[in-house]
Amino acid sequence: MNRVYITRRETFNAAHKLWQPNWSDEKNQEVFGACSNKNWHGHNFTLFVTVSGAPDEATGFVMNLKDLSTLIRREVIDHLDHKNLNLDVPFLTGIMASTENLAIAIWNILSPKIAGFGAELEKIKLVETENNFVEYYGNKKPF
Amino acid sequence: MNRVYITRRETFNAAHKLWQPNWSDEKNQEVFGACSNKNWHGHNFTLFVTVSGAPDEATGFVMNLKDLSTLIRREVIDHLDHKNLNLDVPFLTGIMASTENLAIAIWNILSPKIAGFGAELEKIKLVETENNFVEYYGNKKPF
Amino acid sequence: MNRVYITRRETFNAAHKLWQPNWSDEKNQEVFGACSNKNWHGHNFTLFVTVSGAPDEATGFVMNLKDLSTLIRREVIDHLDHKNLNLDVPFLTGIMASTENLAIAIWNILSPKIAGFGAELEKIKLVETENNFVEYYGNKKPF
Amino acid sequence: MNRVYITRRETFNAAHKLWQPNWSDEKNQEVFGACSNKNWHGHNFTLFVTVSGAPDEATGFVMNLKDLSTLIRREVIDHLDHKNLNLDVPFLTGIMASTENLAIAIWNILSPKIAGFGAELEKIKLVETENNFVEYYGNKKPF
Amino acid sequence: MNRVYITRRETFNAAHKLWQPNWSDEKNQEVFGACSNKNWHGHNFTLFVTVSGAPDEATGFVMNLKDLSTLIRREVIDHLDHKNLNLDVPFLTGIMASTENLAIAIWNILSPKIAGFGAELEKIKLVETENNFVEYYGNKKPF
Amino acid sequence: MNRVYITRRETFNAAHKLWQPNWSDEKNQEVFGACSNKNWHGHNFTLFVTVSGAPDEATGFVMNLKDLSTLIRREVIDHLDHKNLNLDVPFLTGIMASTENLAIAIWNILSPKIAGFGAELEKIKLVETENNFVEYYGNKKPF
Repeated sequence: MNRVYITRRETFNAAHKLWQPNWSDEKNQEVFGACSNKNWHGHNFTLFVTVSGAPDEATGFVMNLKDLSTLIRREVIDHLDHKNLNLDVPFLTGIMASTENLAIAIWNILSPKIAGFGAELEKIKLVETENNFVEYYGNKKPF
Repeated sequence: MNRVYITRRETFNAAHKLWQPNWSDEKNQEVFGACSNKNWHGHNFTLFVTVSGAPDEATGFVMNLKDLSTLIRREVIDHLDHKNLNLDVPFLTGIMASTENLAIAIWNILSPKIAGFGAELEKIKLVETENNFVEYYGNKKPF
Repeated sequence: MNRVYITRRETFNAAHKLWQPNWSDEKNQEVFGACSNKNWHGHNFTLFVTVSGAPDEATGFVMNLKDLSTLIRREVIDHLDHKNLNLDVPFLTGIMASTENLAIAIWNILSPKIAGFGAELEKIKLVETENNFVEYYGNKKPF
Repeated sequence: MNRVYITRRETFNAAHKLWQPNWSDEKNQEVFGACSNKNWHGHNFTLFVTVSGAPDEATGFVMNLKDLSTLIRREVIDHLDHKNLNLDVPFLTGIMASTENLAIAIWNILSPKIAGFGAELEKIKLVETENNFVEYYGNKKPF
Repeated sequence: MNRVYITRRETFNAAHKLWQPNWSDEKNQEVFGACSNKNWHGHNFTLFVTVSGAPDEATGFVMNLKDLSTLIRREVIDHLDHKNLNLDVPFLTGIMASTENLAIAIWNILSPKIAGFGAELEKIKLVETENNFVEYYGNKKPF
Repeated sequence: MNRVYITRRETFNAAHKLWQPNWSDEKNQEVFGACSNKNWHGHNFTLFVTVSGAPDEATGFVMNLKDLSTLIRREVIDHLDHKNLNLDVPFLTGIMASTENLAIAIWNILSPKIAGFGAELEKIKLVETENNFVEYYGNKKPF
């Protein structure tokens, strides 16, 4: 089988803070530094969703990018864009709003839905700033 | 005189919302859309500061970039990075936190201080997202 | 007056060829090289539209970016995106499909409409590849 | 063995359309949308070719990048740049001109030739727009 | 285990030349071309360091990015930035200053130290120009 | 007259150091910091050359980009790429190798030659790192 990987990029702008409620202010400041600012800060996040499959004989597509984009926007972007990750996002309730945890949450939402199109989710890449990003492969890269 | 323009890039991450307190919630939503989300959103802002002058004969510099960077960080970035533009920034108090107004405020802070180094502030460019940015030239481009 | 310049980025993907119908095939090949390929080639074009004005006191905006984006898409992008610049675009009929001429045509379409929003069109920047772009200022930079 | 992966970037500009000749116009429009425009559209494609091997003791190279660049240009870029992918490219005849299929075709051309230099082709990455790209690993990532 | 991969970007500017002392000038010129210029040339290098682990329950972090950045700067960047790779870098003594060998050397320095933070080094990516980069995975991708 | 501005991008990789021979080592270190490293450092420089004119009626071109690119490469890039700016470049002899001075030198070389093509040189932009660049307009922006 000719497995090809296609990636769709989407963007969202959100506020958040890194704040562990079980800790003192001092410990939050010590561990998270400026990221623990009580009044929030924010980022232009860039999300890359990679799915794989064999190209369809008639279309040459692993998956129609319009379908993939519509899916990502409806299931993920619409819930994150111009939101506060700590306060406004049902699927992040009770979870530390780190980029790592956000990538896992996005994987868990998209993985079954992409399977419904006959493709497989392979990677979530979430870029927070030009200096750091996170990648999550589910159980695709077993160690 | 051989006037040369040098530009230094600095970055900051901040939260804000577009919210006119004299207006109803409905009007804020109508004009500002998602940018009026009560719980804030945020951006990775990129700031470009352009100054001009003649290159010094001994150094070849319009202005030492270390001095320019130190100045921008101390006077501007340290007050904006990982902050809430509506709540945490003394020099934005009582001002709509639009990118336009932020660029003007930065100009007003930096212009006299750059003059103190024998150079002239020429432009503030402030990039909010990959799709929009603002430029301010003070009275350098009179119309 | 505090004149501020705001820029909106939009993108479109189009085919074109550089072909002067009054010339022989040989002369077209000699002047335009690979760009004269009869079966077309294409680009991801990036358009930057810069407008200026004083920030509104209530909104802090020179012009609402949603309005600017809607205007650019309706008047320009919808007529260029996934089109053939030589065959599909009424406002380019009879004009050499060079990036220079395309920038002028976009200026002529947008300039009066932006004036209708109380702002002034200042610049059209059209990026054809990472190695070349065109800028047009109308009569804003008189020489 | 110290396997290192080196990647060379090359670019080409091409026209294409997504069009399934066995389908009606309506079905082509429904599936491919604007990409099915009869008069073509186009892109600035960016190609990344990754090869691996152990660095040579004398040169420190997995493969001389000049050789890799010359090979990619002669075998791939010269046949795609400023061309129409549906009409002008012998190795795409009879194949849907999707980015997926183009990546596979490039792999099949380059893989044996890179082996001739004592290195292994590991990945073809083909970027069509800033919002989508395709990766192909041949049988390197078996599932 | 939920293995997540986080990447930190750092930059450095350095001079080097590609020069094999066991070879004649002619052979150096033939193999390395302009890169063998006796008086050196240089690059803005970009380094991406990827580490993996399970996000910590309290912080949501695989590894604190401040720690990762401090480590990379102290152990790697401070020894390479504004240096000559052939003359100034103890850990490159006697090694051809190719990007491949530099990536391996960086891996060997960082791998044990990242293990000390309870994370695993997964990849060193070193970008030399916009047209070429190198990736090294240690023994993570066994063949 | 419809004055349009076209810009061509070219790149070169070079070594240099900032070193004032009339100064002590201590003063060089104090003013130039790491940039004064005796064994050099280097950069990937990016050069943007902007020329203006009216688009030709037959071609739609301000100036043929092939001619502009050939000119820049022959007159500038071939003398700078993979060179040492302090040692290898005749037109920089006796000049501090700052980015400012390099931009002026490039202007002086290109300005008369571009006039020979019936266009006017408008701007030299020279990017040294992602954090700093220089622009020179000759006497085009009189103050």
